[in-house]
Amino acid sequence: MVPHLTTALNGPLLSLEKSMLNAMPKIEHWFRTQWLDHAAPFYASVDLRNAGFKLAPVDTNLFPGGFNNLNPDFLHLSVQAAMVAVEKICPEASRLLIIPENHTRNTYYLRNVVELANILKQAGMDVRIGSISPEITEPTVLETHDGQPLLLEPVVREGNRLKLAAAKIGDTQLSEFDSCAVLLNNDLSGGIPDILQNLEQNLIPPLYAGWSTRRKSQHFDAYNSVAREFSELLGIDEWLLNPYFETCGEIDFNARTGEDCLAAKVESLLEKIKIKYAEYGVTQEPFVIVKANAGTYGMGIMTVKSPDDVRGLNRKARNKMSVIKEGLEVTEVIIQEGVYTFESINDAVAEPVVYMMDHYVIGGFYRVHTGRGIDENLNAPGSHFVPLAFEKPCTLPDCAGSPDATPNRFYAYGVVARLALLAAAIELQEQDPLNQ
Amino acid sequence: MVPHLTTALNGPLLSLEKSMLNAMPKIEHWFRTQWLDHAAPFYASVDLRNAGFKLAPVDTNLFPGGFNNLNPDFLHLSVQAAMVAVEKICPEASRLLIIPENHTRNTYYLRNVVELANILKQAGMDVRIGSISPEITEPTVLETHDGQPLLLEPVVREGNRLKLAAAKIGDTQLSEFDSCAVLLNNDLSGGIPDILQNLEQNLIPPLYAGWSTRRKSQHFDAYNSVAREFSELLGIDEWLLNPYFETCGEIDFNARTGEDCLAAKVESLLEKIKIKYAEYGVTQEPFVIVKANAGTYGMGIMTVKSPDDVRGLNRKARNKMSVIKEGLEVTEVIIQEGVYTFESINDAVAEPVVYMMDHYVIGGFYRVHTGRGIDENLNAPGSHFVPLAFEKPCTLPDCAGSPDATPNRFYAYGVVARLALLAAAIELQEQDPLNQ
Repeated sequence: MVPHLTTALNGPLLSLEKSMLNAMPKIEHWFRTQWLDHAAPFYASVDLRNAGFKLAPVDTNLFPGGFNNLNPDFLHLSVQAAMVAVEKICPEASRLLIIPENHTRNTYYLRNVVELANILKQAGMDVRIGSISPEITEPTVLETHDGQPLLLEPVVREGNRLKLAAAKIGDTQLSEFDSCAVLLNNDLSGGIPDILQNLEQNLIPPLYAGWSTRRKSQHFDAYNSVAREFSELLGIDEWLLNPYFETCGEIDFNARTGEDCLAAKVESLLEKIKIKYAEYGVTQEPFVIVKANAGTYGMGIMTVKSPDDVRGLNRKARNKMSVIKEGLEVTEVIIQEGVYTFESINDAVAEPVVYMMDHYVIGGFYRVHTGRGIDENLNAPGSHFVPLAFEKPCTLPDCAGSPDATPNRFYAYGVVARLALLAAAIELQEQDPLNQ
Repeated sequence: MVPHLTTALNGPLLSLEKSMLNAMPKIEHWFRTQWLDHAAPFYASVDLRNAGFKLAPVDTNLFPGGFNNLNPDFLHLSVQAAMVAVEKICPEASRLLIIPENHTRNTYYLRNVVELANILKQAGMDVRIGSISPEITEPTVLETHDGQPLLLEPVVREGNRLKLAAAKIGDTQLSEFDSCAVLLNNDLSGGIPDILQNLEQNLIPPLYAGWSTRRKSQHFDAYNSVAREFSELLGIDEWLLNPYFETCGEIDFNARTGEDCLAAKVESLLEKIKIKYAEYGVTQEPFVIVKANAGTYGMGIMTVKSPDDVRGLNRKARNKMSVIKEGLEVTEVIIQEGVYTFESINDAVAEPVVYMMDHYVIGGFYRVHTGRGIDENLNAPGSHFVPLAFEKPCTLPDCAGSPDATPNRFYAYGVVARLALLAAAIELQEQDPLNQ
């Protein structure tokens, strides 16, 4: 089952998908040369929006938390990609410590950790899960929403290494665990805890990939140059796969400082979008998304259709915008062109999410939301989306089929997601303290 | 549908599979470190024999010709592995020329070429098929057994490069084709043609991987050291996955020279096997396979159960043994411990063949033969086998399942096939003229 694309205006997108199909060897060759210069992140997921006239990434997650939503039929694809990724970070080692998020009560998230660990185990790693949550003081078996057990063990710091102590769980005796690398599945929204500072082990992704230092605008700056080069390669309008954006610093929603900057940027962005909509005959109303420049989980996100929408926010809206995950305060925002999602299934809107390991697309899923509009962010807390696993991998276009045949739409998703992945690689290279 | 293992004596094998499952992280880690020192061939297939008490490779093909027999459900796995392989040989190029075998009348083989080209196209390469057959003097569209078209173009040598000339096929205008690399799917049984000598393009596999220079005994010499190290790692008897072998040079079946060497080696091998059979309580009769040390396609192969079998061969048997593919004369033979195949399906014997690209297992199939015995080679000309694609990939053991559950049997196949692949990597390294 694949969501329908419910828009009359899919001319530009069909021609975009068509030019991707025709240029496939050129595209893959271009990616290959890019990966010679830029090391792909260990893993990533990219949220896409498909407006029929435009297909663009709106968020790139370097600590993906939905491995449980991937199609189990393609598990072997993830395993093979994990083998490639593992060979790069720790060819000579076999132990890997995973550090998940601290919110251990989200049993769906726990299922993601089970699945991620499973992929890495199948890739031949000896995997254990080490928690840095203050609640986990001894080895604890938690249960996922579907009844799978997950053993979390408290991480112990010895000198500059993270270890797990020897433990006895039921009848099983676990030995002490000292791994070559530590895989973070924790986006560090709450800052970098001391226990993770100055480790001699290889931390993947690096600490500066966490939200305590990462900025969405740095990512989309890098995406600008990637999208420009790719669009020149294909001879297409870059706007078809790149959303406009602006930033405002020094925002304090509660103290109402920065409102003018925000309103001005919103206005100029809406103006630019209007011109493009006119060029392509799009009749929808332009909108922008205002969100925290650092952070995740769809908190601190607003859909805005007029500069007035950001002036004189009421207390509730200001509270909503001012704090994101882990109580992190919002002081910088990114104002990003909103991309309608015109994919829907049974009247619910759907947004594709593409998963990658190293530089390989391993699958993806749709976030399907019944309670949300086509101009709203679907990765929001509270209102649970229903995941719908991609029924085909994103790597096998059917060149004989129509541009919008499922495998071809998925191929286009894989290409755009890899463009965002490449932007993340460049972003991380630029943010690496060693390069500064 | 998976063949049954029809033997009462599968104790040693079950314990072998079990130790592989338990040691999975250790095994994968060991492979990873091996691949740091030894470059995997671009592609390979390995014929295995599963006797229930023993699981061993009996032939490693560096020019695999059965890509059409793989399960189409796992095509994406081949594509991803091909991406890895291509990145190693030609990261900066996008064109690849495939040179297939000259026997253009085997419409099943042609189907293999279509599938191989398809995998490489899906991996993003610009692929064309160049023939070195004297019959192909102009671009020729052939048809596979199932009606797929395959365009063969005559290869043109310009200086030290192989190219394809510009051509017009129907309404399609093909431009001149100059590729970074040339992929051989031709095992050079008939010797190395002049047109392939001293090319400046990257030839994959290298010319010395062809049967005009390769020797099975060099491969199994390398396999001896691989199997020894692996068996020490697992603490198992190396014999459980390694067939004994000997060689005789200076054989002339027609002039009846070399018979004494052959009979003596047959006798000593049978003796060694007998001792092992007694050790493991195997009641079958030991046998050996006598085959050409260079060459392929199951010509020049004999099942031998007594030294007398190789003395006083009649004219027909001598003729059969003396010449293999492309009229190549047999002067050296390898005498290899025969491994019974106790896998069968509907009363037909079955032999697994595992396919790999770079160092990744991408799938495999069973050769299913109704007209052959459990002690005969199943890759023989004339008597067509029926391919039965593996229904699962070889990379996903089910550690909770019984050792002989299908995914676990397949995992063991993948491990043993990779041992043979590693032996091929070492063999090629040793045979590389640059290392001599």
